[in-house]
Parts: sequence; C-alpha cells; structure tokens
Amino acid sequence: MPETINIDALKADEASLRARYQKFKNMGLRLDMTRGKPAPEQLDLANDMINILSAKDYKDINGVDCRNYGGLDGLAEAKKLFADFLEVNTDEIIIGGNASLNIMHDIIVRAITHGTCDSDTPWGKLNKIKFLCPAPGYDRHFAICEHFGIEMITIGLEDNGDPKMDEVQKLVANDDSIKGMWFVPKYGNPTGLSVSDATVDKLASMPTAAKDFRIMWDNAYTVHHLNDNHDKIKNLLEACKANGNDNRAFIIGSTSKVSFAGAGVSMVGCSQANIAWLKSHLSIQTIGPDKLNQLRHIKFFKNMDGIKAHMQKHAAIIKPKFEKVLEILENELGKKNIAKWSNPNGGYFINFDVPNNCAKKVVAMASEAGVKLTGAGATFPYKKDPNDCNIRIAPTLPSITEIAQAMEIVAICVQIAAIENL
Amino acid sequence: MPETINIDALKADEASLRARYQKFKNMGLRLDMTRGKPAPEQLDLANDMINILSAKDYKDINGVDCRNYGGLDGLAEAKKLFADFLEVNTDEIIIGGNASLNIMHDIIVRAITHGTCDSDTPWGKLNKIKFLCPAPGYDRHFAICEHFGIEMITIGLEDNGDPKMDEVQKLVANDDSIKGMWFVPKYGNPTGLSVSDATVDKLASMPTAAKDFRIMWDNAYTVHHLNDNHDKIKNLLEACKANGNDNRAFIIGSTSKVSFAGAGVSMVGCSQANIAWLKSHLSIQTIGPDKLNQLRHIKFFKNMDGIKAHMQKHAAIIKPKFEKVLEILENELGKKNIAKWSNPNGGYFINFDVPNNCAKKVVAMASEAGVKLTGAGATFPYKKDPNDCNIRIAPTLPSITEIAQAMEIVAICVQIAAIENL
Repeated sequence: MPETINIDALKADEASLRARYQKFKNMGLRLDMTRGKPAPEQLDLANDMINILSAKDYKDINGVDCRNYGGLDGLAEAKKLFADFLEVNTDEIIIGGNASLNIMHDIIVRAITHGTCDSDTPWGKLNKIKFLCPAPGYDRHFAICEHFGIEMITIGLEDNGDPKMDEVQKLVANDDSIKGMWFVPKYGNPTGLSVSDATVDKLASMPTAAKDFRIMWDNAYTVHHLNDNHDKIKNLLEACKANGNDNRAFIIGSTSKVSFAGAGVSMVGCSQANIAWLKSHLSIQTIGPDKLNQLRHIKFFKNMDGIKAHMQKHAAIIKPKFEKVLEILENELGKKNIAKWSNPNGGYFINFDVPNNCAKKVVAMASEAGVKLTGAGATFPYKKDPNDCNIRIAPTLPSITEIAQAMEIVAICVQIAAIENL
Repeated sequence: MPETINIDALKADEASLRARYQKFKNMGLRLDMTRGKPAPEQLDLANDMINILSAKDYKDINGVDCRNYGGLDGLAEAKKLFADFLEVNTDEIIIGGNASLNIMHDIIVRAITHGTCDSDTPWGKLNKIKFLCPAPGYDRHFAICEHFGIEMITIGLEDNGDPKMDEVQKLVANDDSIKGMWFVPKYGNPTGLSVSDATVDKLASMPTAAKDFRIMWDNAYTVHHLNDNHDKIKNLLEACKANGNDNRAFIIGSTSKVSFAGAGVSMVGCSQANIAWLKSHLSIQTIGPDKLNQLRHIKFFKNMDGIKAHMQKHAAIIKPKFEKVLEILENELGKKNIAKWSNPNGGYFINFDVPNNCAKKVVAMASEAGVKLTGAGATFPYKKDPNDCNIRIAPTLPSITEIAQAMEIVAICVQIAAIENL
C-alpha cells in the first residue's frame, strides 16, 4: 500500500523474521482476532441487568404487562430512550428484537417482496437491482446483498473514510437500478473513521435516478467512544428531511455492544412514511418484540446519561487493547513504511493495510502460526479485495497478552509476505 | 348451521330478548373476547422465570456464554428440551426468537425469495402459487398468504375437525402451483379439535404435483391440555419420513402460552435437509437468537415433566373459564337447536357456529353492547366465511364474571339475529 518500501532493510531482517515466525509456530498458539465480539469483562458490566427485574416487576411505567402479547413497535419508554440513542424523534423509531442485522435484512426482504413505500414495483420483480458498497466495509451487509442477488458496486474510500462521493453521485444520478447503499457512518467497520458533515449533506441531497433509493445507515457504534473527545456526525435523517428526501434514510442501531451481544435490543429510525411501511409488514410477521428485555434495558440504563456512563466503562476495558495493537504495529512496522493502520477514536476495529497482494498470504501465515484473523477480502463485496491488501483487526475479545502475541506474529507475517512478494 | 330451528319458540322470546339486550347495552360494558391472550394469572405462573438467572448465571451447561454472540440454532440444552416438546430429534430442531409466527412467516419468505430445498424455482418467480387453508383456521396464517399474494384455497372441515382429505388429496395431486398447507393439528384454532391418525397418514403419504409441497404444522397447543385425558396426535414428521416425504413437514411451536406471550421461545422441527436450508438463510439474517432467554426457560422448566406440571397449573386457571362459556351457551341456547359449539379438550378457543348469515350481525350487535369478539370471517381466508356463521370464542383473558356477562350477551345476540334473519 505505501509507495516506497525500504527493501534492503527488510531483506536484512529476513532470517531473523523467519526464525521468530518458526518459534511462534512451534508454540502451538490459538489466538482469535476474527470478530468484533465483546470480551467477557465488557459483558460483565451489564450483569446486573440479568436479574434487574423482580418476579413482580413486569409492567412498564404506563402499566403495560410486558409478559403478554402486544406492542408491535416497542414500549413507549424504550422508544424514548432509543430515540435519544439514535437521535431521532419518538415517532420515528421502532424497537426490534435482539439483532439489528435482522432489521436490516428484513428491510431488504420487504423491498424485494413488496417494494418500499416509494417503489412502483417490488425490487424482486425488476431485472436487476444494485447497491453501492463503500469498501472496506461490513461483511454481513455484503452477505445480504449476495444472498438476494443484489449486484454490489464497490465504492472506494477517501483517506478520511468517506465514500468517494463524486463516484457515488454520478452513479446514483444515472442508474435507476441502484436502489441503495450501505454505510457504517461512525467509527466505521473496519475503518474506525466517522463520516464528514459534507458527505452527509451530499448523501441527503444528491439526486437519484431511483425514486426509492435507500441508505442503510448502520450506526452500530454511535456511543462506542474510546476517548473523551468523541466523534460527532451529522444526522442523516434530519439532513434527508431538510432536502425533501425524507424516506431515504434507515438509521439502524442496537445495544449488542452496549449491554449483551445476542441479548440486546435493536432499533430502526426513519421517516414516518417508512415507519408506517415497516409496521404494515411487521404486523404480518410478528405480534410484537420481547418487551421484558426492553424493560430490563430501561431499568438498567434509565436514560442516555446511563448509557454514556456505561460506555465509558467499556472504553476503559478496550482502549488498552487498541493501544496494544497500535503499540506493537508501531514497534514492529513503524519505521519500515510497509503498512498503514487506522488509529480509531471509537468502534471495534483497526483497519490494517498491508502491501498489495499480501493480505491473503498474511492471513494464511498467521493462521499457520495459530492466529485467526478475519479472512482477507471479507471486508469487500464478493470477498474480493481488488488490491488484496486489507485486513480487519478486531482487538476487543482477546486479552492484552494475547493481543501482544498475535500482533507480533501478524507483523512478522506482513514483513515475510512483503519480502516474498518483492 | 343446525338443520331445524324452533322458530315459534324463538319468536315467543323476542320481546324478552330485546329487553335484556337493551339492558346490557345501557350498562356500558367493555368486555374483550377477541384474542387468545393468556390471563395475568396464567402469566404469574412463570414469574419466577423473570429473575431465575443471577447476575453470574449466564453460562449454559456446556460453558457457552449466553451473553455473547453465537449459536445460530440455539443452545444444546434448549434443543434437547424443545425437541422433546415438539417430539422431534435434537438434530431436527432450530430454536428461534420470541415468536413462532416469525418463524412461519420467514419460512414462506425464504421459499418466495429462494425456493425451498426441493424447489427448482423460487416461489416468487412463479406465476401463481396457492396454499390450502382448512377453515375455520388461524387468521394470522391466512394474513401471511394474503400479504405475499399466495392464493388461498379454502378447505372445509369434517365434523372431527380434520380437513376434508378427499378434496385435499385431489387438489395437491393435480395442481403443482399448490405449494403448501396450513394446519393447527392439536386443539385447533379455533376448532379445539385434534387431528386423526388417518389424516396424518394421508397428509404424509399423499402424492403432490409440487415436489416442494410443504405442510406448515402449527403445533401451537401441543401441551395445552384442559383435562387429564390428553389428546394425542400422530407425529407428522415421522410419518412424512416413513413415506419418503422427509422435507414436507415444518412443525412449529413456542412457549408463548407456556411461559410468556411475547417473551417466550419459539422453535421449528423438520428434516435435516430443511434444517440445513433454514440455517443457510438464518446465517444471513442474524448472528443468533437470545440465548439468555433460552437459559431462563431451561432453568425454569428443566425438562418436559416441568413443562407438563406447569401446564396443569394453566389448565386449573382456564378450564373454569371454558366451562363458564359452555355453561352459559347451554343455558341460553342448549334446547333451541339454534347454534352449535365445540367442547375442546385443550387449546385456547371454543368454536361457535351460529345460524347462516348471522355471524357478522352477532359480532356487530355484541360490539354495540360492549362485547368485543373476533371479527366474523376472521377464521377464513380473505376474511370471508362462506356461510357467515363462524365465531371464535377466546375465553382465556377475561375473568369468569366477565365471561358470564359477555356470553349471555352473545347468546342473546344470536337469538335476535336468528329471529331477524328468519
């Protein structure tokens, strides 16, 4: 990736690098840096939520019996709390089940089977539909597109992590088969970067050939700061409304990495027309979400201040892990002009770019030495990284000792792969 | 519905009936007999489940951290418990979220977008698909078909509640656009009746023109007995396997009316090919279900004996309600040969057939007097009861006093409607 690699210096180290690699290989390590899973210590922070309800504590503030059927779009208190969380109005939110992925998946499905509230035709009845996929991005977004035969157009990123907007604007203006776009706008997956105001404005205002164009704004890391000086992003839904494109934005979030991954609460924020559209489909699919789990979240967090204070505890656990990754990379690779990496202000990932045509080799070599990394290419549509250079580092789950070992191995692999590729 | 109504006797009562109706109307009652919702006292039975997990009690017997991501098809212990519940093998079950309706809906969606594991073509790409709908049946099944443009063919019921199998067999043998069939096989909704072994065998063995024909066997009331002498039904999945039609059956269940309606656990049992098919779609839609809620169910019920004992407590609460409905109907209408009703051995409903062309009128009149009933026709495809005679009585939610009042009003309405219609 970087322009000039100091080949001679690298080659001088080759014997030592191979010896270190072999030493690690002989250790039979089993380290996992693949997925953005919270560490047990992070999950411990919310343990008191597990039994926060007593056996008689099943009604919400309005007297709703959370044990029984009903309440398609969530408890009023949950809507209030998570409207603050997503930065939308309380009539612009629906509370879902335990997974925001499910919400996103089902929005795409409904557009395919029925069309959006602005579609003339269900997407599934059209010859071809396409989505813009800024990449590197989140593999599960791309998996949804691939599963439903939605053609993905890879959009490159600027250095600040924003999608290349000239390209985006040109494509959506001229091709009405482009129906949407994925993006993780804050502390992006895997870039760790947050979208600029200018790009939000362009996304909200750009003319699109498809009148039912949708932005799947996966705000998964909205409160997941690593430092006190938080990133702030412009509100896409408000910007869309200001530009008369009210229905363009679906803002999606969850507490998977706030309370419990797998037993959290998910939510979607959007225009009232989109809310009505979602409800018309939801009412066929379910009688309602798990309100007891919503009640647990309400009692535990109380309000946004509660969530913010809780996230500081997360940061205290995971920030040293991010720092350890950066420290090892700096120590091993810092002066070698061989790779570059992000220094995120929040989120769950460090973006790591190795020399072109080396990412697959690095992942394979690391695996042989007992370090599992996210598959090379996973962050791109169809798992195809055009430069084979991007690796996603997920530091939250392993311990700091494991991270130090794993990253040393990865750094060694990068150097050996670079030498072999030269 | 019945052949001979004693018109003179009925007319002799008219003035008194109208006076009683007016008296109730003046009372401004608000009684709700619409939906099969558990009463608060039933939900109380599982209150200890709400806080059964301690703040450190988040691992299953295999050490799985139920707070974190993973486990697409459910905890091993949950699969064991609910395999017993559904009467399938542990490798023939997937544990879902809080709603079996969601499982059923999503199976239909996947067949539409991708086809089943036996389909040549996604159902959505075919000109027309049809489902057989034995009726009266469950309105939410029919709503799914209507929502997705699946043409519904109403199948009448025999007196024992079984679908008219001659008709079913003939239709499926000759029309390959008939892709499936809904049925609530045990303590049916709304019949209260359970399917005969002979009909299970016919369903399992019948030749179908569509090789991807599916039976949506909504076993919602499998343990919901009202009496000690339980209904037993033949296992459809086993029967299908015995006939080489392994993939025909989806058996669906939930604890919505065992633990909490809305915060229970849902599940689907089917062949291993169907399990693989479901997982291939589930893995795109979600990272996994709420395992903490599964753990609560495991700890609370422990095993099938625990579930059975728990259901006896439900029966103790709701059986007197069913008896009150039957008592009032017998007192008011028993000797008048004007209507007939089921006397179910389990489940959530009493099926009530009034004279032809009277059901809508009865529901409207009852509503004017403050008694909300399930909409007339709701139990039929497209909400069209061909005879306008079927009413679904849901006795579980109201108190016995409310039931007595509501049913007296309903019985009065039936008689007035019959007189007006003669």
